[in-house]
Amino acid sequence: MSEVLFTNMAQLVTPGAGLQRGAAMRELTVIPDAALLVSGGVIRWVGERAQAPSAAREHDLGGAAVVPGLVDPHTHAVWAGDRLADFEARVQGVPYEDILARGGGIRSSMRATGAVSVEELVRLARPRLQALQASGATTIEVKSGYGLDFAAERRMLEAIRILQAEFPLVPTLLIHVPPTEGRAEYVQAVCEDLIPEVAQAGLAAAVDVFCEKEAFTVEETRAILQAARAYGLQLKLHADQFHAIGGTELACGLGALSVDHLEASGPAQIAALAGSETVATILPGVTLHLGLPAAPGRALIDAGAAVAVGTDLNPGSSPVFSTGLALALAVRLCRLTPAEALTAATVNAAAALGLPDRGALAVGQRADFLALHSRDWRDLPYTLGTSPVRDVWVGGVCA
Amino acid sequence: MSEVLFTNMAQLVTPGAGLQRGAAMRELTVIPDAALLVSGGVIRWVGERAQAPSAAREHDLGGAAVVPGLVDPHTHAVWAGDRLADFEARVQGVPYEDILARGGGIRSSMRATGAVSVEELVRLARPRLQALQASGATTIEVKSGYGLDFAAERRMLEAIRILQAEFPLVPTLLIHVPPTEGRAEYVQAVCEDLIPEVAQAGLAAAVDVFCEKEAFTVEETRAILQAARAYGLQLKLHADQFHAIGGTELACGLGALSVDHLEASGPAQIAALAGSETVATILPGVTLHLGLPAAPGRALIDAGAAVAVGTDLNPGSSPVFSTGLALALAVRLCRLTPAEALTAATVNAAAALGLPDRGALAVGQRADFLALHSRDWRDLPYTLGTSPVRDVWVGGVCA
Repeated sequence: MSEVLFTNMAQLVTPGAGLQRGAAMRELTVIPDAALLVSGGVIRWVGERAQAPSAAREHDLGGAAVVPGLVDPHTHAVWAGDRLADFEARVQGVPYEDILARGGGIRSSMRATGAVSVEELVRLARPRLQALQASGATTIEVKSGYGLDFAAERRMLEAIRILQAEFPLVPTLLIHVPPTEGRAEYVQAVCEDLIPEVAQAGLAAAVDVFCEKEAFTVEETRAILQAARAYGLQLKLHADQFHAIGGTELACGLGALSVDHLEASGPAQIAALAGSETVATILPGVTLHLGLPAAPGRALIDAGAAVAVGTDLNPGSSPVFSTGLALALAVRLCRLTPAEALTAATVNAAAALGLPDRGALAVGQRADFLALHSRDWRDLPYTLGTSPVRDVWVGGVCA
Repeated sequence: MSEVLFTNMAQLVTPGAGLQRGAAMRELTVIPDAALLVSGGVIRWVGERAQAPSAAREHDLGGAAVVPGLVDPHTHAVWAGDRLADFEARVQGVPYEDILARGGGIRSSMRATGAVSVEELVRLARPRLQALQASGATTIEVKSGYGLDFAAERRMLEAIRILQAEFPLVPTLLIHVPPTEGRAEYVQAVCEDLIPEVAQAGLAAAVDVFCEKEAFTVEETRAILQAARAYGLQLKLHADQFHAIGGTELACGLGALSVDHLEASGPAQIAALAGSETVATILPGVTLHLGLPAAPGRALIDAGAAVAVGTDLNPGSSPVFSTGLALALAVRLCRLTPAEALTAATVNAAAALGLPDRGALAVGQRADFLALHSRDWRDLPYTLGTSPVRDVWVGGVCA
């Protein structure tokens, strides 16, 4: 088992391992002149250089600040087609209904995604995942959800499986867009056909549902999540993006890993999240891109919730190809402090994926870490427009 | 004179040459399957590939969309020290007066900048300029303004002069922070000593003043700008950032190249800009970083003004190291359309520097252009978090 001692870090900065809620999100450990012992892809020792054990090999990190690798807990990185005409129309003031009427909107992504092969989906997603990884993401969740039919959903999940050979991905089956007719039959088929097949094939770790006035009702969502649980899959939810219709309360009650979006969450939803183990995942890229209200990140933390942050990378509402930028935007748009944003983008994002083995620089954790261009970790939340990440280490190997 | 025909562009997209105001900012020329003939660093022919003249050499651009190189008309890219502690304190809710009291704020940048050599200023600024250039900037304005005294101001301008060997920079003398005592003597010395010296040494193309309640009054600003004009320097102004105290109206009356910031501009200031040749330069990075109101970009264009966009790269209020991101933010935060944003970041930004020779892909213009990763130029305003710019050509040479 090859053992490497990483040395010459100006500082090593980390939250505590595992989910951190409320004020604990601000408690970082900062070790100046630190060292990190890695073997078998796992951290074996962390501390000051002067106290470090000897190792067969040493790797000099050139005086960089070192932080845990980021976890992006919410992306839709697999799609075909583009939404550039939609973007141009929207910012010119064309209403979304008109964009839909001229063939745009999410259904255009579904048609384009449904029309291409698994290999083409892989080819299109690869540079997006490369960009996320270069920005600091060492674990990336990727959702299905642009399938017009179950076969297209499976092709998306198969593309993610193929890309897992190149990137550390976590696949999620997303039940995203209800059919225009036959909703009851569709939900039944999701529960009785799609979820069992996906679970049996090991194509997804979790099931996510878009619970919203224009998407699935709370009752439909409950049925889908219960089926997911029956087949041993974890639960996630898109909720409170535009209207707080009860999805957050449902997900907290069912023990979901996370509820994501939360732009429309009010005191009742914040209280539900603060009183549960469910992670509140905020997606500030959507706020920037669409100019809509931000999720109440500050209020969630002040209430004691565990907040995570992700890109929501997707062509319609968040063309944000940087997990590091999502972290930086959480500070500007959702009023997280730099320390809270680092915790949100590492251990809490890992908790949102049910992965307690990563996100902190602590003994027993995966050796996922970033060496920055800077000697001060705060350049990570501070810097806009260029990447402060110099190199990305996944399981002790430079990506 | 070596002649190169650039070919294999999916599309070539450009505003018209020269300052564009109001609705004309939306009028782009889009040429599919285009070609561009360059010799001596200047564009000699533009049109469809099928009609192109023959040339001694051809360069295949691999099917990229091609747009003019961006012009960043407002940066403070030369500084020493950092403002990371200020950033952390501010987002934790510490008032700016307390940040100043603990030794932070702009005066900490002035102390740090004043304490280092010209060579150190060059070394610190270089990676910032590299980042701006990689993001698409083919001309970059850089201001002085962190000098505690005139010697420090000259060192900043000397650093910019040295960096001009590596980057296409335009230097501006910025009269930024009034002294705590002896204001009248200071303004007199600026007019009678600093401006003449800088003009004689050719260290600046323009003089800029920060006209604001907490900085220079309208009368002080008038005296400084009149001295600048007397010595043959162009005029620029920081105005209406927090309060509309009359700087914009003054600058328009004096024929300044541009008035920059404008977050606090109201109908009177918008009308003054719309009725003048002065460019209205908006700086949306400040809006994102500080969470303050955006400049009225939409209202300025609708009123008929010529709007430009820049990064305002500086350590305190805009750590935005990408001119491309400034363009993208102008769409999200100041409600420019993609076409208006491209015009704002090219020909209008060039006009804000008094440079009619660049910013458009037209005969006689400098051969400054960008080949994108995409076949659709709209990926430039659309993409967030990664650079859509594949390569940057300055005067026909790949940077």
